[in-house]
Amino acid sequence: MNLRVRKIYEALFALEDLREIYRQALPTGLDENEEKQLSDGIARVETIIRELKEGKGNPVQRVGDRLELRTREEEFININPIQPGGRLTPEARKALIAYGDGYSVCDMCLEGRLDKIRKPPVDEFHTELADFVGMDEARVVPGARRGFQAVTSSLLENGDVVIVSDLAHYTEYLAVEIAGGVIKEVPSGPKNIITGDAVADKIESVKDATGKLPELIIIEHFDYLFGNEHDVYGVGKVAKEYGIPFLYNGAYSVGMVPVNGKKIGADFVVGSGHKGMASVAPSGILASTDEWAPKVFRSSQIVGDVTGRRFENKEPVLMGCTLMGGTLLSMMASFPHVKERVERWEEEVKKSNYFIREFLRIEGNKIASECPRKHTLSKVDTRDSFDRIAKTHKRRGYFLSDELKRKGIVGEFAGSTRVWKLNTYGLSWDRIKYLSEAFIEIAGKYELPVR
Amino acid sequence: MNLRVRKIYEALFALEDLREIYRQALPTGLDENEEKQLSDGIARVETIIRELKEGKGNPVQRVGDRLELRTREEEFININPIQPGGRLTPEARKALIAYGDGYSVCDMCLEGRLDKIRKPPVDEFHTELADFVGMDEARVVPGARRGFQAVTSSLLENGDVVIVSDLAHYTEYLAVEIAGGVIKEVPSGPKNIITGDAVADKIESVKDATGKLPELIIIEHFDYLFGNEHDVYGVGKVAKEYGIPFLYNGAYSVGMVPVNGKKIGADFVVGSGHKGMASVAPSGILASTDEWAPKVFRSSQIVGDVTGRRFENKEPVLMGCTLMGGTLLSMMASFPHVKERVERWEEEVKKSNYFIREFLRIEGNKIASECPRKHTLSKVDTRDSFDRIAKTHKRRGYFLSDELKRKGIVGEFAGSTRVWKLNTYGLSWDRIKYLSEAFIEIAGKYELPVR
Repeated sequence: MNLRVRKIYEALFALEDLREIYRQALPTGLDENEEKQLSDGIARVETIIRELKEGKGNPVQRVGDRLELRTREEEFININPIQPGGRLTPEARKALIAYGDGYSVCDMCLEGRLDKIRKPPVDEFHTELADFVGMDEARVVPGARRGFQAVTSSLLENGDVVIVSDLAHYTEYLAVEIAGGVIKEVPSGPKNIITGDAVADKIESVKDATGKLPELIIIEHFDYLFGNEHDVYGVGKVAKEYGIPFLYNGAYSVGMVPVNGKKIGADFVVGSGHKGMASVAPSGILASTDEWAPKVFRSSQIVGDVTGRRFENKEPVLMGCTLMGGTLLSMMASFPHVKERVERWEEEVKKSNYFIREFLRIEGNKIASECPRKHTLSKVDTRDSFDRIAKTHKRRGYFLSDELKRKGIVGEFAGSTRVWKLNTYGLSWDRIKYLSEAFIEIAGKYELPVR
Repeated sequence: MNLRVRKIYEALFALEDLREIYRQALPTGLDENEEKQLSDGIARVETIIRELKEGKGNPVQRVGDRLELRTREEEFININPIQPGGRLTPEARKALIAYGDGYSVCDMCLEGRLDKIRKPPVDEFHTELADFVGMDEARVVPGARRGFQAVTSSLLENGDVVIVSDLAHYTEYLAVEIAGGVIKEVPSGPKNIITGDAVADKIESVKDATGKLPELIIIEHFDYLFGNEHDVYGVGKVAKEYGIPFLYNGAYSVGMVPVNGKKIGADFVVGSGHKGMASVAPSGILASTDEWAPKVFRSSQIVGDVTGRRFENKEPVLMGCTLMGGTLLSMMASFPHVKERVERWEEEVKKSNYFIREFLRIEGNKIASECPRKHTLSKVDTRDSFDRIAKTHKRRGYFLSDELKRKGIVGEFAGSTRVWKLNTYGLSWDRIKYLSEAFIEIAGKYELPVR
């Protein structure tokens, strides 16, 4: 437990208490009692800051009564496979402080449309988002999954076939299920990589079996199981040849990897805010081309039978407005950093490969993902190394988590010493080297040979 | 602009910069350069705190480059019609500081199900949520609208009829539209109140016209247009008599008004986190009875044709997990306060009526909502008072906003002096009296007679 980190949290919380005084006071100013509260509160902040400087005092443990403090990004190196792309930037954390309240983005809503709000500049952000992924139009959605759902519910009739990868994320299956569609999987083969040819083969087999072409292709650029790169350009080409719309699943790329949907040949690009754009969950984007936007972002057509009420300004596929507060503001505040960081993707891949090379120095360690790595998410196989220790260790599989935690590393699935996933995204070179060394030291401690 | 409020924000932001140092550092501790950054940062915080005490220095205006600071809850009384129930509690703001990062709730996810996470106690929270609204099972959803959508998509076939109020929120229409249903509106009549009898009449007319009963009834307890209370108990009774499922729309009640779904006779209860439960948007709840839970919270049935993959642990209607981070944690952190505040609903209604009585002292002012008020959201009619001033004022309708803002009151729709909405929810008696007096003073300034 890092006392100074805890003191920073404590000071943040104490300042929120100060802020609350103003939320209850009259706009004309504080009364005597409130002034007293404020000066007591300020004194409390001063004490905490003094303790932070001197490294003294008790560490805060909780938020309120029930919630444990979450400090894994400050006190540890977090190698959780799904979390690093959604870690907030300082800018997002500040925006969240200012815009956490429920409908905080709606102060100046003039048209009843989230994407047309000009203050804060939500409209501008939407234009930039579309541009960012090389598409014509974009909307924000409550998670990538809601982007899939918007597309499947717009394009599918009952029984329509959708092509996905055999490594597809479960949310793609659910999006097809909820729209009444049928899943047909493309085999990723022994290399665990989807190719354009494999997609074409599957299309042909669907055509042979049903006499009809599939209605939609959904393929991820990088899958969640191996973090392998799939041939989305090849898939885009095949999709165009057959005239089948192609949804590019960028949950593991948008916001981290440069993405140009049109160059890829995608008709839809879906990305995740909390997985890849340093944003609060649930958030994400759905982008489309001018060709498909009128279909997926169509206006509401329903009419009240008595009142004749209509809502043509609203988009039913989004259920109207989507992210009306802190989620959206966190996306917007992180966006300048996110645009910049995708340009540094090659460096992230370099760091990933550095770690993997070091990790492979431990005899018995294997990588289940493609090598060299093209992503920061990797599936590692430690059955012939750490799991051999686990078999006789009194803490069994937990020994590795214990050792890692002792070195300030968390995020692996506790108790896993067989085949498991980790993600090095966003770690500095210093942290990457520390992480690599930590595994080697643990191996040394248990006398696993290191090459 | 309140300098001390701005200094509190500035200190919060400066502390986030300190926190960031630890997010980049090694877990073994800060190096020399980082120590220097930390001590410089602490000195900056100390300066800001000193300025806060002394009321000196420049007021911070922005978060980052583009976002204006949002201080309307601290520097003003906010009477916006949709925002007050979603204003965060201090507990929620603290939880958000700790749990803002993307997938922050998933550190200890063992079963791949949000509602089964035990640390933080998400599972317990779900049980309490169901109990809180008097139902058997509950799930969190990204906004009340996604609760409607979950129910319509589970219950409707193409062309099925859904009964709604003629005052229904647009999201109910969209939820029916997206599921292929047909809307039939119940007239609220000259009193703008939905009765059980009116619902029964509409059911009969649907039966006569189509030979079939409607598949679903959705009625709000309080509507968004007038904030009138509708006879949901009467509707519940009628729904039971006809055997038609009844979705109780609690967007303007859950989290503010005591709600017991089963007593009402509801099959589904939907509430909004950002509208009524002091939570970050988008958030909300969908609760159900044991009878309907297996239908709406059914397991995924889809199967991969090649891999045979299944996802029976996932609920397709929710698209799997819903609120994986700050949104949920804000709901959880506010919940103890929310449970308490619903018990004080009568006092909120008293304050609402106090304000309305004072407001009506201004000659020409009228209330379009039912009187006495049973809610804090009210539609007011100032066509024969403030709008008469607006006609010749050089700022036209904006004069009222200008005058209110000068008195530290915001949230009315700028430029509206005709028929408009306001909400007094959560204002202390001091604030209520100040607000009432402010309108009377403005009337006095423009020589509108005050009784």
